[in-house]
Amino acid sequence: MALLRKINAKARTEINTGFGANAADYGGRFVNKNGEPNIEKHGVNFFEKISWFHSMLALPRWKFFTLIFAFYIIINLLFAIVYYLVGVEHLSGVKTGNDAEKFAEAFFFSAQTFTTVGYGRISPLGFVTSAIAALEALIGLLSFALVTGLLYGRFSKPTAHIKFSGNAIIAPYKDINALMLRIAPYKNITLIDAEAKLTLGMITEENGIKKNKFFPLALEFNTVNSLTLSWTIVHPITEDSPLYGFTKEDFENIQGEFLVFIKAFDDMFSNTVVTRSSYTFKEIIVGMKFNPMYHRNDEANKTILDLGKLNSFVPAALNSNLAGKAVNS
Amino acid sequence: MALLRKINAKARTEINTGFGANAADYGGRFVNKNGEPNIEKHGVNFFEKISWFHSMLALPRWKFFTLIFAFYIIINLLFAIVYYLVGVEHLSGVKTGNDAEKFAEAFFFSAQTFTTVGYGRISPLGFVTSAIAALEALIGLLSFALVTGLLYGRFSKPTAHIKFSGNAIIAPYKDINALMLRIAPYKNITLIDAEAKLTLGMITEENGIKKNKFFPLALEFNTVNSLTLSWTIVHPITEDSPLYGFTKEDFENIQGEFLVFIKAFDDMFSNTVVTRSSYTFKEIIVGMKFNPMYHRNDEANKTILDLGKLNSFVPAALNSNLAGKAVNS
Amino acid sequence: MALLRKINAKARTEINTGFGANAADYGGRFVNKNGEPNIEKHGVNFFEKISWFHSMLALPRWKFFTLIFAFYIIINLLFAIVYYLVGVEHLSGVKTGNDAEKFAEAFFFSAQTFTTVGYGRISPLGFVTSAIAALEALIGLLSFALVTGLLYGRFSKPTAHIKFSGNAIIAPYKDINALMLRIAPYKNITLIDAEAKLTLGMITEENGIKKNKFFPLALEFNTVNSLTLSWTIVHPITEDSPLYGFTKEDFENIQGEFLVFIKAFDDMFSNTVVTRSSYTFKEIIVGMKFNPMYHRNDEANKTILDLGKLNSFVPAALNSNLAGKAVNS
Amino acid sequence: MALLRKINAKARTEINTGFGANAADYGGRFVNKNGEPNIEKHGVNFFEKISWFHSMLALPRWKFFTLIFAFYIIINLLFAIVYYLVGVEHLSGVKTGNDAEKFAEAFFFSAQTFTTVGYGRISPLGFVTSAIAALEALIGLLSFALVTGLLYGRFSKPTAHIKFSGNAIIAPYKDINALMLRIAPYKNITLIDAEAKLTLGMITEENGIKKNKFFPLALEFNTVNSLTLSWTIVHPITEDSPLYGFTKEDFENIQGEFLVFIKAFDDMFSNTVVTRSSYTFKEIIVGMKFNPMYHRNDEANKTILDLGKLNSFVPAALNSNLAGKAVNS
Repeated sequence: MALLRKINAKARTEINTGFGANAADYGGRFVNKNGEPNIEKHGVNFFEKISWFHSMLALPRWKFFTLIFAFYIIINLLFAIVYYLVGVEHLSGVKTGNDAEKFAEAFFFSAQTFTTVGYGRISPLGFVTSAIAALEALIGLLSFALVTGLLYGRFSKPTAHIKFSGNAIIAPYKDINALMLRIAPYKNITLIDAEAKLTLGMITEENGIKKNKFFPLALEFNTVNSLTLSWTIVHPITEDSPLYGFTKEDFENIQGEFLVFIKAFDDMFSNTVVTRSSYTFKEIIVGMKFNPMYHRNDEANKTILDLGKLNSFVPAALNSNLAGKAVNS
Repeated sequence: MALLRKINAKARTEINTGFGANAADYGGRFVNKNGEPNIEKHGVNFFEKISWFHSMLALPRWKFFTLIFAFYIIINLLFAIVYYLVGVEHLSGVKTGNDAEKFAEAFFFSAQTFTTVGYGRISPLGFVTSAIAALEALIGLLSFALVTGLLYGRFSKPTAHIKFSGNAIIAPYKDINALMLRIAPYKNITLIDAEAKLTLGMITEENGIKKNKFFPLALEFNTVNSLTLSWTIVHPITEDSPLYGFTKEDFENIQGEFLVFIKAFDDMFSNTVVTRSSYTFKEIIVGMKFNPMYHRNDEANKTILDLGKLNSFVPAALNSNLAGKAVNS
Repeated sequence: MALLRKINAKARTEINTGFGANAADYGGRFVNKNGEPNIEKHGVNFFEKISWFHSMLALPRWKFFTLIFAFYIIINLLFAIVYYLVGVEHLSGVKTGNDAEKFAEAFFFSAQTFTTVGYGRISPLGFVTSAIAALEALIGLLSFALVTGLLYGRFSKPTAHIKFSGNAIIAPYKDINALMLRIAPYKNITLIDAEAKLTLGMITEENGIKKNKFFPLALEFNTVNSLTLSWTIVHPITEDSPLYGFTKEDFENIQGEFLVFIKAFDDMFSNTVVTRSSYTFKEIIVGMKFNPMYHRNDEANKTILDLGKLNSFVPAALNSNLAGKAVNS
Repeated sequence: MALLRKINAKARTEINTGFGANAADYGGRFVNKNGEPNIEKHGVNFFEKISWFHSMLALPRWKFFTLIFAFYIIINLLFAIVYYLVGVEHLSGVKTGNDAEKFAEAFFFSAQTFTTVGYGRISPLGFVTSAIAALEALIGLLSFALVTGLLYGRFSKPTAHIKFSGNAIIAPYKDINALMLRIAPYKNITLIDAEAKLTLGMITEENGIKKNKFFPLALEFNTVNSLTLSWTIVHPITEDSPLYGFTKEDFENIQGEFLVFIKAFDDMFSNTVVTRSSYTFKEIIVGMKFNPMYHRNDEANKTILDLGKLNSFVPAALNSNLAGKAVNS
């Protein structure tokens, strides 16, 4: 734990991060790689704990459609059972056969009612069956109203279509060194007024008590006007940086985590989108520099952004000046 | 009313709160516990007074669906009456029986038309009945268009899923005391850039005239970067606080109300959400401190936030220094 | 035009209002009473000039539903003509009679197809009629998709449910006088962080050239935290006011217009709403004061806001001090 | 390339534009005339490269509806093939004829199922065909749910309905000259708080290395309160302007590009809209002035904005003072 004392005493800390200070109560990383806080909620029941709408929107596409399909099968099975129990003789036009065939007819009558197709070869007879069918048609329409809303919610959900480089690197920068990571937009959208925030979270020891400490890291640029090409986010390791004096070994041995936060304005939907990621010290590679990601096309009338090179870097000698010396192992 | 004079003369007041100053015109608390202003509007008719869309969105879920169901029954009853009056003989395929059976057939034909199931066992014959059915199908589709919008409106409504501690407490804080309340997010959402505002509203007496006075309360932090764990909102009772010099008895005897306002950015929906609550002096408990709400899990790789402990506190000796002395009864 | 010279030379003017300066090119008031700019656009064709979506959202409710109904009748008439021309013999199950009856059957078949009720008593036979019906069902569904969007757009449209007093008044204010107007929210919504801007627009003469001049008017409060009760917007007529030195006759004889702009945050929908109005000098009443609009209820546990009193005022003697003297005719 | 040295050394440059600095990697203009960056993305697969929702919203109206129609035909063809392969004998009520007729019946049965019209003349018999039909009805409803969302997304998409003058001009301005371009809103919307940003992008040479340089251009007004009439955006060519000292020939011979960015608040939809355009030096006309675009109507009670005159200008003698001299060829 002596290593914890390596943190530059001049570095500015931040206290209102929303993560508590008492490290003993903390488990694992602060923020998961996908940007979600690494926290579990207890003490409320399941339905209070989740926002089902948020959850349905966050579901991967195939799970979402599987869920709809499963719901469709199950609700039709339920109604088929009800029709079957009330008696298939109340379904006019039903093809009678063995029990399985009758049940199948009830099932497909249910599907035809739920979707409001209503071919009419089979139709309800008598008060009870008619009432159940009337209820099912209502439920069917409400379900599709709901699915319409969910689908729209899913695809209109503001999303920052930004990729992060898999690693952050320590690279030479002017006559010192810098921590660098790279982001790039990967869809046909235009993000403007992009803003980056980089915070170092570490568990430190003060008078024998472990504390979470957060250090905001100064960036070369905090904003870019328009995020059209890649953006290399650069934290120069100056004398004020909490990383000042770190050696390659420090990065390998100390537990720390860089929290990245990106905010931009998607001008197609006119809303602000945000995204987050985090890099643990294990994901930092010391002594590299990023390869360029864009070049002009053959006709020299367009610029090509090659997203495959987002995490591409080559070894580079670090500077051994004051600020950079320590990183030079 | 001598107690009213207890308010710290150095405390800053706020005048543009949107609540009027003349206390004689005021009844009850300023803001209800659920955050809505305690005001009733007269002088406009019912339809001008409410925004039905706002109302439908604020309705509890079960009331909303009951309303839809009731509407479905009533509209079908109405159309059934019309079809019945025009004559069920214009409904081809209707099963004739006694009047009740005929009416039931008309009712279910209506339901099949309204939901556009249209099995066709019963179908309209003749101009009048056909025209009514054509109108009903249109109304049915418009109704479901509307319900689709309402459902989407309901679940996409920006909501700050934040719980407030049931009580606020007066707790020791550094070498003075502080008013504290605690909030926590309780759903699977991420709120960032959370902002709190705390205002004390009291009825004071100046030259014999009762006046509403509002005091903005300085907070330890006005903002947190990310509302992932609980947030204890702390107003240190310094010499500038309107609460400076208050005793335990004062809190029990004086009428006053703390208005809390929280604003945050829900980054899943990319919109700002706000929520409000209020604590009367009766809801303040003097001489307590909050229990911690979070701890690491057994595998030490996640942090657990226990929402059941949001309003959990234990007695704590208050500081008797200058600022805190008075609260120490 | 000598009167134009009456404007206080010390008054600050504003140039980037978006209204041009050359008064000779201007006709009528700057902004209509309903807040819309008094401008007509030429030089583009009709479809480029209007945004049909904006227009459908701005349409009064009854016009909107009449339009939908008319569209429904017309599209069914059109398809009925097509089915009739192709031949009703291709509509299986059609009741043959005279031409009018056949056309009616074609019309209702169209309605049943368009709404996708599809009872099936009448159904298409043969390639042409089947293809037309398949097209109509598609158009029907697209139409209802569109109506769903329009309905949702209409009722989720951010609207500032704020009423303006019909008149603005010149009232005594402290030891001077002030221009006052009053606004109040009239629906069950909560508007916070309300912001007002008041601008005086006048045609002035400089070196014989008429110019539009705009004067921003300083307000007692520019913002209120929460717009729960009425808000009296007050412009004190100090020595810096463009109205300083105006007499009652001036208000009657000079042409001028007060533009009011209100911005607030509707915290139910989490969006900013704005509204505008304008008062010409003819709508200013000199020597009045507003009657109070709210009072406590009988049980003294709620405050009543009486919207019927929004434009209620009584005569009040103006102050004859320096700032106010001139208004005292 | 000597011309590149003509750029005013006093001009301020901007580095965080989001366009890289190394000009050798650049092809063509920075921003296309329609405001989109002139960049192509490689290195990710097609589906990752586009956001299909963004694309469907950006599609011209006729293409969008053609796509829907094509999808409708294709999905019905696919299902028709399946029904046909399973056997039309499982479609009760189907009119048997030759293979083409049978296929047509299967096709129209599919259309009736997909749209949920379900006349019922043809209806599915047997487990396999019934199950396929139940699936198709589900897919049909999901498709229309999706189309509802897309339609709503399309017409509620925040759009800045602003036209740019086709050319920018160099015009006399006070006693110097200025670069001017003109914008005007062209639909029945109200844009407030409009904001303009003008940036000059040029390829310059420093020590033999070509670099992209960006110069923010100071404007007469950066904002207007309300964009109701046209707005002439004016960059006065003062001594600090990068254009200071440019001659008419320079504009003809040097490659440069003016990037215009407009941001405004559409108060009907309560959201911020942005739009962009760009002018290459070839699109600059030296020695012109804009003709007025608005005039009062015949009744003198309204102002007419003539959008046909947006790009209308007449020759005007430039000033030959210090700042302007150079432009006077």
